[in-house]
Amino acid sequence: MAELGMGPFPDSAGFAEAQAHDAADALAEFRSRFISDDPELIYLDGNSLGRLPAATSDHLEEVIAQEWGSRLIGSWGEGWWTLGRDTGDLLAPLIGAEPGSVVVADSTTVCLFKLAWGALRLRPGRTRVITDDLNFPTDLYVLEAATEAAGGGDVEVIQSHDGINGPVEAVEAALDADVALVTLSHVVFKSGYLYDMRRITEAAHEVGAMVLWDLSHSAGVVPTDLSGVDLAVGCTYKYLNGGPGAPAFMYVNPELPLENPLAGWWGHRRPFDFDLEYRPAADIARFQTGTMPILSLAAITPAAQIVAEAGIGRIRAKSVALTDYLIELADEVLSPLGFTIASPREAARRGSHVSLRHPDAWRVVQAMIDEGRVVPDFREPDNIRLGLAPLYVSFADVHNAVHRIAGLMREDRLSKYRRQRSTVT
Amino acid sequence: MAELGMGPFPDSAGFAEAQAHDAADALAEFRSRFISDDPELIYLDGNSLGRLPAATSDHLEEVIAQEWGSRLIGSWGEGWWTLGRDTGDLLAPLIGAEPGSVVVADSTTVCLFKLAWGALRLRPGRTRVITDDLNFPTDLYVLEAATEAAGGGDVEVIQSHDGINGPVEAVEAALDADVALVTLSHVVFKSGYLYDMRRITEAAHEVGAMVLWDLSHSAGVVPTDLSGVDLAVGCTYKYLNGGPGAPAFMYVNPELPLENPLAGWWGHRRPFDFDLEYRPAADIARFQTGTMPILSLAAITPAAQIVAEAGIGRIRAKSVALTDYLIELADEVLSPLGFTIASPREAARRGSHVSLRHPDAWRVVQAMIDEGRVVPDFREPDNIRLGLAPLYVSFADVHNAVHRIAGLMREDRLSKYRRQRSTVT
Repeated sequence: MAELGMGPFPDSAGFAEAQAHDAADALAEFRSRFISDDPELIYLDGNSLGRLPAATSDHLEEVIAQEWGSRLIGSWGEGWWTLGRDTGDLLAPLIGAEPGSVVVADSTTVCLFKLAWGALRLRPGRTRVITDDLNFPTDLYVLEAATEAAGGGDVEVIQSHDGINGPVEAVEAALDADVALVTLSHVVFKSGYLYDMRRITEAAHEVGAMVLWDLSHSAGVVPTDLSGVDLAVGCTYKYLNGGPGAPAFMYVNPELPLENPLAGWWGHRRPFDFDLEYRPAADIARFQTGTMPILSLAAITPAAQIVAEAGIGRIRAKSVALTDYLIELADEVLSPLGFTIASPREAARRGSHVSLRHPDAWRVVQAMIDEGRVVPDFREPDNIRLGLAPLYVSFADVHNAVHRIAGLMREDRLSKYRRQRSTVT
Repeated sequence: MAELGMGPFPDSAGFAEAQAHDAADALAEFRSRFISDDPELIYLDGNSLGRLPAATSDHLEEVIAQEWGSRLIGSWGEGWWTLGRDTGDLLAPLIGAEPGSVVVADSTTVCLFKLAWGALRLRPGRTRVITDDLNFPTDLYVLEAATEAAGGGDVEVIQSHDGINGPVEAVEAALDADVALVTLSHVVFKSGYLYDMRRITEAAHEVGAMVLWDLSHSAGVVPTDLSGVDLAVGCTYKYLNGGPGAPAFMYVNPELPLENPLAGWWGHRRPFDFDLEYRPAADIARFQTGTMPILSLAAITPAAQIVAEAGIGRIRAKSVALTDYLIELADEVLSPLGFTIASPREAARRGSHVSLRHPDAWRVVQAMIDEGRVVPDFREPDNIRLGLAPLYVSFADVHNAVHRIAGLMREDRLSKYRRQRSTVT
């Protein structure tokens, strides 16, 4: 194993199988659309930050040099002003939404706040907000802020029985006529559990509650159908590859009389009249608030176009095949080494990452990155998340990653890593 | 005038004077730090969108290719995670704030919302919020949202008597023990009027109210001293040249027990613990909310470094000289053509842009851009804003811009422009 981390394992009996999967992969050519200057690196963190598309790199050069550097404020009228809506229209079919119902703006956290507060204003007198403990923590913080802004209420965090699977029945049991809003991550960030969106939405609607879905770990990789859904938000920098901290998207069902409670000039009907009175735009643009970070926003367009070209159906099919394959290999190779699967085994209930648990997870992750040239991410207390972004992760990557991890464990390369708690991982 | 818009006017008696000013300009060399591919273009809209620094162009190439493309999630631990605070520390001396009191995040509108709501929570029982009709409209919209979030209150918009000068006495007269917050633009967006920050702050403090200053048109061009000031926000893409829609900054006086009411994971004490409970960071980082748009954020650093190198004192001195010179030339050349000065004549009460009024302002602006190669901006109903960014606007630019405008008027080149109302200018 002196060559650990250096290239594939042609001696492995299973490598031929991985190669066969890759040869049959309808999306194989998309791998070359992404910049990758280290052929040995296996990047399994596209569920956190998607890779850089070559087209994005080219587009940003144009945006910076031409749109900003040369055309200057003229660019506001030549695409920048409508870029939030236009990017929303590009994303809409990818998330199963109709044109004109999606807009890009702010961060996911701020978008959640705006839609949650807006929803609570439509349900005066109802005091309960339902979510679960698998939700991304910032979503919970935001719900506290939104209920305070709306005049008070109780945010109830339903507990998962195993930390892996969504507490579907318990969420349903919590529903009554006092519930204003149910909000969950469609695919949860740690285990990758995939909620049945239709089931929860219908159950909430039966008691007159609204539903707000966080699609951060679904958008670009798990198909969704938002017809009948009230509200959704999501991140553009994971499977949509929009770049670090690229602005988030909001979906608002066009039939809802929802207003943006955090009104700003970008949501005004006639922003350049500089009215002292706020008059909301009639369309989805009213959910914009302040001036958009154009460079980060512009990066989304070419990236989302790649997802559209590949097709969300084909992406999901490959995602399921990749995660199935990873679980199969992990059962065979990693289980004997103390790893357990901390994601749903049923593909229909799983997004595009697989979490492994290991008592020494933090050190395993350090060794994987430093020596194995495999990049996962670590989530407290013992989770190793392996994100399989179908546009650039191959079956050979999955095979090699599993065997590199096994190699690290067998040679006990972990002993030199001493856990240091840090706010940054 | 066949050569209108093509180069300087060496035949003008005054051009030699402009050249003499430029020859004596201590900041003349900074002009070359900015990308400008059209030597004929006179860009007088740096008060709206600052020019692209060459250093920013280089830095962004590195951020995109290396930090995102190559180092991927590793970059979060190598500068991205702390970039909001680090950029805040870079801006702090430029706005007269102490290190650790400034952080960059979100848009100016969202930052205003967070600080205004936070301030109102510190003044329970007080129901009045004071601002003026010269404030940027989004600031007023946000105050409505913040008062609603805080449980109600009245936003009182004090009227300026002439639309140019701030209603200082009327603001002071409105102050009493029911006022929770006074918030104004330090330099107002239309006339460029510059408030006496100390006077208003002290008057507000006398009745126990807090003060929140919007420094959007001051930061990078008008020195401020925030000692004793409660709160401030501002824009980074005007005189700080941070790029289109670059995130905003917040200043919070370290002595205030202010919390961020819009809590998100980026303001958490230990964000990567993924606590279900929010625990705010002890430092200014707690005013961050969601994930930062890194490309737009990263653009601020090299731009702000140029401002720091030039020195805010020298920048202000040149700004005063430029605006004085513009007013002098406008009195002489443009007044006979129907233009009036709509900015304070006293330099101490003026920011770095000068507004002209003209009954045909909209058409004048179109002709200036299309034929004169002079870029101002138009503000309803009859304002032509001429922003003089001292780092790259020369005295010759001012001279030539005035004479080009005069040329357009004399030859009546306006008749072909028909006013079309548009939401985008």
